[in-house]
Amino acid sequence: MRIARFSIDGNVAFGAVEDGPDGPVLDIIKGIPYADFELSGTKVPLKSVRLLPPVLPNKVVAIGRNYAEHAAELGNEVPEVPVAFFKPTTSVIGHGDPIEYPSFSQELHHEAELAVVIGRMCREVPRERVKDVVFGYTCANDVTARDVQRREAQWARAKGFDSSCPLGPWVVTDLDPSDLGVQCTVNGEQRQLGRTGDMVRSIEDLIVHITEAMTLLPGDVVLTGTPAGVGPLNVGDEVAVTIEGIGTLTNKVIKRG
Amino acid sequence: MRIARFSIDGNVAFGAVEDGPDGPVLDIIKGIPYADFELSGTKVPLKSVRLLPPVLPNKVVAIGRNYAEHAAELGNEVPEVPVAFFKPTTSVIGHGDPIEYPSFSQELHHEAELAVVIGRMCREVPRERVKDVVFGYTCANDVTARDVQRREAQWARAKGFDSSCPLGPWVVTDLDPSDLGVQCTVNGEQRQLGRTGDMVRSIEDLIVHITEAMTLLPGDVVLTGTPAGVGPLNVGDEVAVTIEGIGTLTNKVIKRG
Repeated sequence: MRIARFSIDGNVAFGAVEDGPDGPVLDIIKGIPYADFELSGTKVPLKSVRLLPPVLPNKVVAIGRNYAEHAAELGNEVPEVPVAFFKPTTSVIGHGDPIEYPSFSQELHHEAELAVVIGRMCREVPRERVKDVVFGYTCANDVTARDVQRREAQWARAKGFDSSCPLGPWVVTDLDPSDLGVQCTVNGEQRQLGRTGDMVRSIEDLIVHITEAMTLLPGDVVLTGTPAGVGPLNVGDEVAVTIEGIGTLTNKVIKRG
Repeated sequence: MRIARFSIDGNVAFGAVEDGPDGPVLDIIKGIPYADFELSGTKVPLKSVRLLPPVLPNKVVAIGRNYAEHAAELGNEVPEVPVAFFKPTTSVIGHGDPIEYPSFSQELHHEAELAVVIGRMCREVPRERVKDVVFGYTCANDVTARDVQRREAQWARAKGFDSSCPLGPWVVTDLDPSDLGVQCTVNGEQRQLGRTGDMVRSIEDLIVHITEAMTLLPGDVVLTGTPAGVGPLNVGDEVAVTIEGIGTLTNKVIKRG
């Protein structure tokens, strides 16, 4: 199932994306997707709504240098333990929302990533139970102020500024994430291309690693690292992250007002 | 005013701490402290309630190496730009709550810090407006898994594990934070002693720096760094952070169950 969050006529709702004779429709969900819910049968055309971030995370835990070719392109080794950092909730935007180019950086980069959406409160998850705590998957762009990242030892500002975490367009719940194509284009031109099968650490490894330390809550998001090909974003660019079996997350870059 | 958050008979409320003839009392607040509120006049003894974390932050932004003597004691330089990192909401506990010693570390350290509580949604705050976005101040303990911090380039696990962010006992709104004594004791023995006047960067500097990148929301918390004297915590220890003009935040260390 593809679960979107959207606003229509001033109301916010979740809906299941379905194919209809006149294009995709949203079957409005009764209840909340992380608990019991059912489809209402009331359908609205996808093109008539504004998509919102498909989840409202309490926290986003991201992983750096999880594809060997990407680590190498920035002159880094593959780390002995996964590099885990946070992106704050104030960085999350949805499909179609603008990425605001902040004035404290002159070098924004795109980083296309598979995002894992957590479905259950969990801590110290054993490897074989990881599948039980995952709700689904969506596309993410771990937008990075590369110049700031080089200067600052911790990445709170470089990877945590407002609008640096586009998520969407929706969450797919029934998907094998083990070998999906991950692509990033800027203005239609391909920049990044990789496969989740080339991750240094698997989704299971990452969730075991994170939950050794901390509780994950329903709606929390784990970003799994970016493949090679990262590069600059400029004001006016349209950046699109496409993941096989999920869809395309598109955002325009504007100057912060 | 000293504003506490507490539970009594299963209800959660905010209250103003006042001195009474038989010890401190809480005057229960009508409304929420970050907006308009008034005191109800209904008073309950402080000793009859369970204190909760005095704020429910959306995010905690912490600053590393902001006292020169502390940077030196761990063999670090004072950084050219402030070192900013996040502690997640799942790490926040209140006065009297246990610090749970996690099994992925064998070297927890205490770090006593002044915490700034934000009162207004803000971004790109000019230095002269910082005072307008601050709601008040509380005590914090930036509990750190020092062994993990040495091994992992980013500090999400080392400083973000569950119960690693004690805050409390209450928020003081009318306080000049520019030169307060900050003390940490373990089992009554002094470990850390410093003054906020020795911060490398002032509170104004830090909030300008953070809000260049990101929006702060009412209830968000900024930790301002720890003075020299950090050291180990062991299961069974009682750690207390005392800040002049605020009070004492006490937590016991237990084994994670």
